Amino acid sequence: MSEYFSIRWMEGTVRMLDQRYLPDEVVYRDYTRCEEVTAAIRDMVIRGAPAIGVAAGYGLALVAWHSKAKDSIQLIHEITIAAQGLRKSRPTAANLFGAIQRILHLVERAGGTRLEVLRRQIMDEAAKIEVEDAQMNLKIAQNGQAFIPEIANLIHHCNTGALATAGIGTALGVIRLAHENGKKIHVFVDETRPRLQGAKLTAWELQQLGIPHTLIVDAASGYIMKHHKIDACLVGCDRIAANGDVANKIGTYNLAIVAKAHGVPFFSVGPTTTIDLSISRGEEIPIEERPENEITELGNKRIAPKGVKVANPAFDVTPAKYITAIITDRGAVYPPYKKSLAKLMNG
Amino acid sequence: MSEYFSIRWMEGTVRMLDQRYLPDEVVYRDYTRCEEVTAAIRDMVIRGAPAIGVAAGYGLALVAWHSKAKDSIQLIHEITIAAQGLRKSRPTAANLFGAIQRILHLVERAGGTRLEVLRRQIMDEAAKIEVEDAQMNLKIAQNGQAFIPEIANLIHHCNTGALATAGIGTALGVIRLAHENGKKIHVFVDETRPRLQGAKLTAWELQQLGIPHTLIVDAASGYIMKHHKIDACLVGCDRIAANGDVANKIGTYNLAIVAKAHGVPFFSVGPTTTIDLSISRGEEIPIEERPENEITELGNKRIAPKGVKVANPAFDVTPAKYITAIITDRGAVYPPYKKSLAKLMNG
Repeated sequence: MSEYFSIRWMEGTVRMLDQRYLPDEVVYRDYTRCEEVTAAIRDMVIRGAPAIGVAAGYGLALVAWHSKAKDSIQLIHEITIAAQGLRKSRPTAANLFGAIQRILHLVERAGGTRLEVLRRQIMDEAAKIEVEDAQMNLKIAQNGQAFIPEIANLIHHCNTGALATAGIGTALGVIRLAHENGKKIHVFVDETRPRLQGAKLTAWELQQLGIPHTLIVDAASGYIMKHHKIDACLVGCDRIAANGDVANKIGTYNLAIVAKAHGVPFFSVGPTTTIDLSISRGEEIPIEERPENEITELGNKRIAPKGVKVANPAFDVTPAKYITAIITDRGAVYPPYKKSLAKLMNG
Repeated sequence: MSEYFSIRWMEGTVRMLDQRYLPDEVVYRDYTRCEEVTAAIRDMVIRGAPAIGVAAGYGLALVAWHSKAKDSIQLIHEITIAAQGLRKSRPTAANLFGAIQRILHLVERAGGTRLEVLRRQIMDEAAKIEVEDAQMNLKIAQNGQAFIPEIANLIHHCNTGALATAGIGTALGVIRLAHENGKKIHVFVDETRPRLQGAKLTAWELQQLGIPHTLIVDAASGYIMKHHKIDACLVGCDRIAANGDVANKIGTYNLAIVAKAHGVPFFSVGPTTTIDLSISRGEEIPIEERPENEITELGNKRIAPKGVKVANPAFDVTPAKYITAIITDRGAVYPPYKKSLAKLMNG
């Protein structure tokens, strides 16, 4: 798809682009143990809800590949233990838990399966998670086209591109396809403090793709909406509750409020694997609090006084009322989301 | 007032705290030429609308002190030239132009004045600008107390403290006096990208003053309002138009919109020298566009890909409808601001 990729399975090795070093350096890392994948997710070598899901699948595939188990029972035990570790890597993205659940579901039914067969089934399932994510990206991109005018000024938050998924991306996939379809796109890129995924990753991806863009600080979005005709805000999602509340990167909620104040349509874009109907409202989504030094340091340079207290929630929840539509691989849904999401997921 | 100060006149020398090095180092710089003061304002050695006004006054005082003019006419000429340079340092803060205007007004009436008398008058006027600013700070702080409950969670944007003024500050002066009056204050400090005045300056000042605070990224304000009972947002101002629209640090507008969405009172706090009745609406206030590297670099480290296009407006305009009250040295005013501001200034 692209010349760069977030994650790839290489027969017993998981290769990831270490996103902490972009845009300065393109460094790939190879892992052979699930614990390394857990750490890579926690430390944000890889990030983006769909990519995290793919990584979790391959983390368990590494267990299956390298296991010295004597029988299926023992492998199932090892998978279960590894899954417990993976679960603790990051708390918010639905895709992480969804991917783990798929593999656990498979092994739970594997009572009489022969070891080598089970090993292969686990690896196949992990590969399926990746392939399906890439396919869902394409469908999302197609389903999103209706919302992008021929000439479009867009605002994008965080990173939702190839780096955040196993394919062309979610929100950024919609933007990419619009560009490839010949639409005249300009993207205002929220830098996305504290980790600067917009400045470091999205600006880099848009450069690779030749899509015109302008980098802004997150708090300038109101100014930009006032001074430019903005056609839409497009963001990803880490978990969508049954009522349409969406957890996504910190700052999404502010952007949504500002968009509403300017009458700018606001779209949450993601695969159906991000929808979690077991969670009724956004308030129930666990929000990760990340280390203070993400805010107080940049590189190794301190930018705030020593000893300062910090609040660093990695995500916020945008209430459904701010979201014009949720664009998924199975189509776009509209308010009232409780109804439309249930119909989308259950048919 | 404080052990640190933004600017001080020392008989022919202007001493400034170089705010670009805080919180790492407390470095004072001495200037003896007005051109140096112009550059210091432009390069943000000193910043904050009131402090910029004081600096401009002392910049012209340096001309008066060091002039080798043979007579008043020649000194008036030198002052006029220096004022032209100062005017170009930064375009948005009303106080800059106000201070220059005060000195120009003085020299315009100085036709027959003897050289040494005029020299002394100019220096006295510059000193008056400083003293008056410090006095206005105290009155602002007193006038603001009515809006701060006994136990208060506040959000503050940018820096409006002693570093931004010649006294205890504007919005931060209100907070400081509330704290000294025994109120239980907690301040959520917007880091204020791109230049991080919140993280670097406000957090530092609050530490010096022993006022409890928590640093957040700018785009987390909605999350904070959702999870904490926030009693008020307090911000400074760089120019207030006749209709109550307020130009202030980029991100103020977003914060105001988010505050309104949560029913949180939003206060613009500043001296009456920031009010510019010659400007009818916010749209007419010139907004400074600052260098791209403020966003793409931190320290000397690049954080965005090379060649990325950037929009870096230093200020935005918050429409009057988002502002609960404007707190000044002459009292607080309420909507409709066209009436209340006119009465405050002329009545």
